[in-house]
Amino acid sequence: MAARQMIIGMHLGNGYGNLPGAWRAPSVDPQSYTSFDAKVRHAQAAERGKLQFLFLPDGPTHVGDLANEPPHFNLDVMVTLAAVARETKRIGLVATGSTTFNEPFNLARQFKALDVMSHGRTGWNAVTSSGEDVAANYGRRLPSSADRYARAHETVQLVQTLWGSWGKDAWVHDQASGRFANAEQVAPVNMSGKFVASRGPLYIPPSEQGQPVLFHAGGSPNALELAGRFASGVIGAAFTIDDARTQRAAFRASAERAGRNPDEIKFFAGLMTTIANSRREGLDRRITLSGRTFTQRASYLGQMLGLRLDPARLDEPLSPEQLAGARPSPGDPRSVQALKIAREGWTLRDVLAHGVIDYHPVIVGPAVHAADHMQEWFEAGAVDGFWVSPDIYEDGVDAFVEGVVPILQARGLFHREYDGATLRHHLGAPTQYGIDPRLAL
Amino acid sequence: MAARQMIIGMHLGNGYGNLPGAWRAPSVDPQSYTSFDAKVRHAQAAERGKLQFLFLPDGPTHVGDLANEPPHFNLDVMVTLAAVARETKRIGLVATGSTTFNEPFNLARQFKALDVMSHGRTGWNAVTSSGEDVAANYGRRLPSSADRYARAHETVQLVQTLWGSWGKDAWVHDQASGRFANAEQVAPVNMSGKFVASRGPLYIPPSEQGQPVLFHAGGSPNALELAGRFASGVIGAAFTIDDARTQRAAFRASAERAGRNPDEIKFFAGLMTTIANSRREGLDRRITLSGRTFTQRASYLGQMLGLRLDPARLDEPLSPEQLAGARPSPGDPRSVQALKIAREGWTLRDVLAHGVIDYHPVIVGPAVHAADHMQEWFEAGAVDGFWVSPDIYEDGVDAFVEGVVPILQARGLFHREYDGATLRHHLGAPTQYGIDPRLAL
Ligand SMILES: Cc1cc2nc3c(=O)[nH]c(=O)nc-3n(C[C@H](O)[C@H](O)[C@H](O)COP(=O)(O)O)c2cc1C
Ligand SMILES: Cc1cc2nc3c(=O)[nH]c(=O)nc-3n(C[C@H](O)[C@H](O)[C@H](O)COP(=O)(O)O)c2cc1C
Repeated sequence: MAARQMIIGMHLGNGYGNLPGAWRAPSVDPQSYTSFDAKVRHAQAAERGKLQFLFLPDGPTHVGDLANEPPHFNLDVMVTLAAVARETKRIGLVATGSTTFNEPFNLARQFKALDVMSHGRTGWNAVTSSGEDVAANYGRRLPSSADRYARAHETVQLVQTLWGSWGKDAWVHDQASGRFANAEQVAPVNMSGKFVASRGPLYIPPSEQGQPVLFHAGGSPNALELAGRFASGVIGAAFTIDDARTQRAAFRASAERAGRNPDEIKFFAGLMTTIANSRREGLDRRITLSGRTFTQRASYLGQMLGLRLDPARLDEPLSPEQLAGARPSPGDPRSVQALKIAREGWTLRDVLAHGVIDYHPVIVGPAVHAADHMQEWFEAGAVDGFWVSPDIYEDGVDAFVEGVVPILQARGLFHREYDGATLRHHLGAPTQYGIDPRLAL
Repeated sequence: MAARQMIIGMHLGNGYGNLPGAWRAPSVDPQSYTSFDAKVRHAQAAERGKLQFLFLPDGPTHVGDLANEPPHFNLDVMVTLAAVARETKRIGLVATGSTTFNEPFNLARQFKALDVMSHGRTGWNAVTSSGEDVAANYGRRLPSSADRYARAHETVQLVQTLWGSWGKDAWVHDQASGRFANAEQVAPVNMSGKFVASRGPLYIPPSEQGQPVLFHAGGSPNALELAGRFASGVIGAAFTIDDARTQRAAFRASAERAGRNPDEIKFFAGLMTTIANSRREGLDRRITLSGRTFTQRASYLGQMLGLRLDPARLDEPLSPEQLAGARPSPGDPRSVQALKIAREGWTLRDVLAHGVIDYHPVIVGPAVHAADHMQEWFEAGAVDGFWVSPDIYEDGVDAFVEGVVPILQARGLFHREYDGATLRHHLGAPTQYGIDPRLAL
């Protein structure tokens, strides 16, 4: 057996990239938000890099300041992945779908149809949804976390039961004998819980991986329990190796408590990238595109560091007095990294351009820096891999694929070729046929 | 102006065709049910014939005898049309979606995303769903017709409001100025009815036709009222010219009552086709593939004609005594046609092979017979066009496109080329931007 290698996913969001100003880059079609061509192009770039999966987040809601920034998500994750499925061959397709605001039968049908269409490459990031803005789109208030997770447990089990309702060999389609299906291998479902119910069966035969694979994203104790029972992949967020290692261990322990082998649950940390020839070049790229958000961000950074930072003085480094008086917020792991960068003597603008108040660790600079970061976290047992969010999809996916991937491959940390065709294979998750007898509402 | 021409849609169901045995035909890939390649191929064939739209019905439920027959519908209509949208250019894409078993926000999002992806070719066949089997997939009993249609009125209005929430010029995406959207042209929704609600807005800009176009299918007074208010197309069913003319007039009158121009609602009758060099050849094709259902159908035909028909004597014509004693069921318009064919002296097997107890008129034989039927109905003012359901998609779409279409074109009854790119254009329906002020829950 080869040494353990990391698994890498690519974030696919609004068509532009993780920089708020990505849509204004000269290389970018400003209509990428509605361009399925653009999304296919970005997915194909990730597939050239042999990445194991695409990850599509979803609210569904509009987030942000529409006058200046695009919405954060895809128009529709299933329609997007259907386009991508037809024009890629190997890469896994993981879409977020809310257990709170969808009917289980509709979730089951769409994800299984996509799984069949993609020949076994589909994953469902089952989330409970948070935010009153999402709930308001459905004319409701957000249910309590307890109710959302109770519904999620029921929904996942019902969906997996519907997925398994055609057994492995149920679909005969023998033209000579005229036998279409082995009806005895098509099981009724008849599940009824407190929140959801369905008689089933679903009318879709197994895919090449049996059924879609489950992901989860969330860090609360409720999330840990749900993922421990059902998830093969966790879309995580961590700013430090220690934090990631703690989270990964918690998910593994939760899987063990649920009677599973802990290696069956993979933890992926987020990583944002601006790959450039030099750090300076990368910082300039970020300043050009998103510098206008820095005035507001300066005061936020000030709070993180316990300082009053003057947004009018973005071109100056922090003064020795400021550096000496800084009190990094203990509740925010980003503040330590921010102070470290400020101490290197960068101007306030450059400090902000490092992405120090972004949602995930940000690499700005040469590909080898990203590779080093990934190697360090991986070898420390902090992650099973990463989901990578490039600054601009249009060239940032290529920059990652052409810059970072070959370094990881040369170091033996990442595979050189897809050696299987399904997402379960890419993740090392077993195929799943039929109905798991433990599923019960 | 050219003379009025008919509009033709193509039924796209389970991947095989309307014959229960279509999946066994030698030309057919028996895995077409799960083959998106097959569905794309059939759609492309319809587009070669310049047909205005594809129509995808949906339950969603499994119907029929799985051991011997495939399910009737697509794995998932939206995933199927997403594949088709990417690989066709002009043909309209009409999918059925239930107003009873979907969240309006989810319907709005998926249909608008498909509309954007297809560059303005999408239609929503908004149905209320019937059948306890569908409701059971959602763990429920079927609501009363009154409640289903009340919810449908609310749902359609909410969905159309969400579709219109980005005004025509809301999406600026000007890279130079950094203006992404004109937020003043993005309207809140804030609709709340008895059954559904949403705050909105949806986060999807207009497509090339503004927003998807509405279809309806159903014949009850409730259906008539819903379609009259909202539908641009009606997927109809009629066995005779008189019946179709009455239905069409009723839909037109309903549109007028709703304050619309009656020409804005188009009535399409179903037509099933087995196009063959001769009637004999067509009958044989049908017998080979679906003859095993005839034993059961013989007794059903007997009921329609008020006769005891012996399923053991499929190879004999009806006797003169039987023909004389036949009493065509007055409630079933098919019985007249069935008796007419029986009187032509065909064997019982051949009578059944004419499709006399199918759901729509069936043409078996040379293309010109189909063209004559279509011309007669169209010129009688019974229809604005047809939705055509071929016996076997794999070659039946081509047979229609290569046989029937050129005859209709030569007679000036059907266009020779798409002269527009959107479904609204194909239907003569006006584009729709922004929120119609009449929409209110
Ligand atoms: C990296 C990451 C990605 C997430 N992606 C999504 C998403 O796409 N959609 C969503 O509704 N929630 C997403 N979540 C939010 C979680 O589902 C969850 O709602 C949130 O973390 C609150 O935690 P709790 O629900 O476990 O209390 C994500 C969370 C993390 C950590
Ligand atoms: C030609 C035709 C096609 C139809 N297609 C569908 C369909 O795809 N899905 C569906 O749920 N109902 C479909 N219906 C059924 C109607 O939506 C409706 O439920 C049925 O006609 C009962 O009428 P009512 O609901 O108006 O009382 C169709 C009806 C007709 C006439």
